[in-house]
Amino acid sequence: MASSSRLALPLRRIKCSPGTFQRNFRARPAAQVRWTGSTAATSEPHQQDRKGGIKDGPAPAKAIKFTSDSYPELKRDSKFAQITEEHVNFFKEVLGLQSAVIDGVSTDAADDIEPFNSDWMRKYRGHSKLVLKPGSTEEVSKILKYCNDNMLAVVPQGGNTSLVGGSVPVFDEIVISLQQMNNIRSFDEVSGIFVADAGVILEVADNFLAEKNHIFPLDLGAKGSCQIGGNVATNAGGLRLLRYGSLHGNVLGIEAVLPDGTIVDDLSKLRKNNTGYDVKQLFIGGEGTIGIITGISILCPQRSPAINVAYFGLESYEKCQEAFQEAKNQLSEILSAFELMDGRSQRLVNKATGKKMPLEGEHPFYCLIETSGSNSDHDSEKLQSFLEHVMETSVVSDGVLAQDQTQIQELWACREGIPECLGHWGGVYKYDLSLPISSMYDLVNDVRDRLTKVGLVGNDESYPVVDVVGYGHMGDANLHLNVPTRRYDKEVERQLEPFVYEWVKGKNGSISAEHGLGIAKKSFIRYSRSDTMVKLMKQIKNLYDPNGIMNPYKYI
Amino acid sequence: MASSSRLALPLRRIKCSPGTFQRNFRARPAAQVRWTGSTAATSEPHQQDRKGGIKDGPAPAKAIKFTSDSYPELKRDSKFAQITEEHVNFFKEVLGLQSAVIDGVSTDAADDIEPFNSDWMRKYRGHSKLVLKPGSTEEVSKILKYCNDNMLAVVPQGGNTSLVGGSVPVFDEIVISLQQMNNIRSFDEVSGIFVADAGVILEVADNFLAEKNHIFPLDLGAKGSCQIGGNVATNAGGLRLLRYGSLHGNVLGIEAVLPDGTIVDDLSKLRKNNTGYDVKQLFIGGEGTIGIITGISILCPQRSPAINVAYFGLESYEKCQEAFQEAKNQLSEILSAFELMDGRSQRLVNKATGKKMPLEGEHPFYCLIETSGSNSDHDSEKLQSFLEHVMETSVVSDGVLAQDQTQIQELWACREGIPECLGHWGGVYKYDLSLPISSMYDLVNDVRDRLTKVGLVGNDESYPVVDVVGYGHMGDANLHLNVPTRRYDKEVERQLEPFVYEWVKGKNGSISAEHGLGIAKKSFIRYSRSDTMVKLMKQIKNLYDPNGIMNPYKYI
Repeated sequence: MASSSRLALPLRRIKCSPGTFQRNFRARPAAQVRWTGSTAATSEPHQQDRKGGIKDGPAPAKAIKFTSDSYPELKRDSKFAQITEEHVNFFKEVLGLQSAVIDGVSTDAADDIEPFNSDWMRKYRGHSKLVLKPGSTEEVSKILKYCNDNMLAVVPQGGNTSLVGGSVPVFDEIVISLQQMNNIRSFDEVSGIFVADAGVILEVADNFLAEKNHIFPLDLGAKGSCQIGGNVATNAGGLRLLRYGSLHGNVLGIEAVLPDGTIVDDLSKLRKNNTGYDVKQLFIGGEGTIGIITGISILCPQRSPAINVAYFGLESYEKCQEAFQEAKNQLSEILSAFELMDGRSQRLVNKATGKKMPLEGEHPFYCLIETSGSNSDHDSEKLQSFLEHVMETSVVSDGVLAQDQTQIQELWACREGIPECLGHWGGVYKYDLSLPISSMYDLVNDVRDRLTKVGLVGNDESYPVVDVVGYGHMGDANLHLNVPTRRYDKEVERQLEPFVYEWVKGKNGSISAEHGLGIAKKSFIRYSRSDTMVKLMKQIKNLYDPNGIMNPYKYI
Repeated sequence: MASSSRLALPLRRIKCSPGTFQRNFRARPAAQVRWTGSTAATSEPHQQDRKGGIKDGPAPAKAIKFTSDSYPELKRDSKFAQITEEHVNFFKEVLGLQSAVIDGVSTDAADDIEPFNSDWMRKYRGHSKLVLKPGSTEEVSKILKYCNDNMLAVVPQGGNTSLVGGSVPVFDEIVISLQQMNNIRSFDEVSGIFVADAGVILEVADNFLAEKNHIFPLDLGAKGSCQIGGNVATNAGGLRLLRYGSLHGNVLGIEAVLPDGTIVDDLSKLRKNNTGYDVKQLFIGGEGTIGIITGISILCPQRSPAINVAYFGLESYEKCQEAFQEAKNQLSEILSAFELMDGRSQRLVNKATGKKMPLEGEHPFYCLIETSGSNSDHDSEKLQSFLEHVMETSVVSDGVLAQDQTQIQELWACREGIPECLGHWGGVYKYDLSLPISSMYDLVNDVRDRLTKVGLVGNDESYPVVDVVGYGHMGDANLHLNVPTRRYDKEVERQLEPFVYEWVKGKNGSISAEHGLGIAKKSFIRYSRSDTMVKLMKQIKNLYDPNGIMNPYKYI
């Protein structure tokens, strides 16, 4: 095989050199890069698994089922008032006609209320008849105080991209949309501190920062729709966490409104401020249950000009851990992603798409490494030296290195394309879990054994389960356990739950690594949190929202 | 001048090449590296400035003044019970004889109580007659519950290295020392997650991690004495913040005990956990006022094998900002410190020590840059290219690069030696402030102008003020404003306060960037926090500590 200037590994160790990589990828027209095997799943991507997991797969095109029908045990809390004409008149007075979307109460507005009532996955749908779009923090304060005084329940809504039904109403809660609060307030190029309204779209913020040679320290698939206030309210994780850390560290300040109308003016532009309890932290991940975030101040790092991506095969999960440790050692400050995919997930991607994979042959595990740094030559040299080391020491069996931006995207597609491809056979039971890294993959094996033992897994149509696969952000010990199925099956569900949650609890893991609680995981919090912690959380909820008007029926 | 292989700058631009650096430093015996001009300040380093600033300088060797005498407006709260024999018997029963230090109630213990009653700066001294040293979280729970039930006030104490009097009693509060809870509980080499008792000394933790090729993401001058629980309780900033971020991002879990004995079991070993309010954040920087941290879980990065340090002179504060921005650009992921020193501070260091400074000639400003990364050659190349750029574009006027570990320490001494040297003339008024980076140094000029205008600053003994200088962590926008004086002077104090605090407030800065509030800054919180924020903080305090027994007379 040909050697390469960028990955000059000893020939005896290389099963697949960059030459092969180029043959695989460069010879193919660009149009074929897109995944093709999952159009059904794309058009109707998700269906609710009522037991807390998410089923991916074709859903009927007709109107989305009301959440109140999917969750018949949820009853509208009678303490909340019904919206009257008088209420609506008050809101119109505060906000003006253009900022209220009203359905069934008045016919002033032609705007359709349905997009605010249901989520993008078409899994949750509420009965709200009123959407308010305040244009300033003061307006949020006025309407929230009025709602609190009049016992009107509300749902704060950002880009409405929640994966757990956190941003849509269940009954007739008033939707408070932040979409009209979308000003970038300031950016300091010396300190990298960015201040903006909560309703700024993540991608808009990131594009603005790109022009200033900075990045938003968070990246998500939903970046084109999600809002930065929503990102902070849900403590979004995403793709840059390994490198830049969590929002609890990066968010420097928050402006928020409490149910009683109090404006929490904690929009600090300081990196250090040790003057009292860090109250703003409660709003990070609070999912709009104690107040509405209206503005954020966040520390943004410099944009890295050099990005490199490698993809490799490994013989065991132990080798993956060794590779991760070695990557942290040798790539240290430039490591920006370390993703794990088991061989089964890659085989199903291959089956679903028919697409040739980057490596020849099959391996039990694959990892994707991304580096980003300020000097391309240095980073390539580090990555090459890392790859030589892990191949010489047999940690890694085979590997390829992307040579250009297109190849970078194609390697990333092997990881990012998984969720879509797994829907190819019908549906998917999905779990977003945090586990101690050493035992993370054991869960996948245990679930597979369990389902196999009772005869649920097989290669032909008589078996409901296609396979049990695992992938995720290895760098963050965040596992996505996925069970692609040919059809929904009560027995599969009985085998999965509460088994998976109990398993996670046994390892002190988390049943929601990055997606939050919303409505989907509300009932399962005790698998991740002790009674004491739940009690402390309820105290916080009662402290800030004694009337319980904020995002009811969800969270804890 | 000689050119160098490490800093090959065009000759015309170099005023001081690495050759000069070597001449300055290498020819001198190692023993001379130590600062010598401030022995008086060393033996009695600090005296309380009652108006909130800190006076450095010789203090009488006699017993330390009681805090209750320095702050006569503080009265013992009569709601707290006096310690009785019965109380002591209960504690002895729970802890055993060896874990209680008793003074004036019983003579069982020979251990001296004074070190627990006063701080290392000899500024604060309490009247406590009882020190308890629990050995487990359960013991902490039992004694705290008892104290709460019996209205006995307590002061949690870690390494007792507070700079604001946060860790010593004021009156007869019971000291709860964490020193016997010093076990390292676990370390995961793959994830870098370290779990330990609160009483583990920071240096012990860091040495343990060094053996595993990791570092604790926090470094402090007091590392040999301070405890990691205390670091978290005070949200310590320190030297690694620019690179690794704050404890709000790095601390993954906390085990703490509330006044009512509740054990907050939030010692997560997960990097991601989005299941409810992040309650533990309230304990980070809570200064022991809502509970006692007994264990922490923290994410530790890989140790960087390559460290480089450069020191350079600049003509204006604007150039310092340009250099910082350029350093973030070019050094990005390897930049681990960017420190600012004004020319006046360096001149006083030179006057106090007689020591030759790294650069010839004088410059209005100096900066120190440290890089740390995984590859020494790469880092040197980046730093060299950065230095070439900033010298060619006249951002930096002159610079030197350390060639070995000794030189690294000597360059750092130009920054770290400042506080000690400034005490040379008598005392120092000191302020630890966060300010927007663009206007950070304006405060130093404004204070100097103000004191000069009223005739307080001059070169001979008739003037109280020697000079007004500024230095600090430029990377964190953390300014240390220092006013070295020949003697304490009421007029100087009147000119400084509230002027400094009002100036900081006008820029939305913080009156305590990293030292916390303790007793020293309790009265000044409103200069950094609005009435709303103070109200929200008091709510938190009342929620967790309704009896107010935790670290009373301090914080908010």
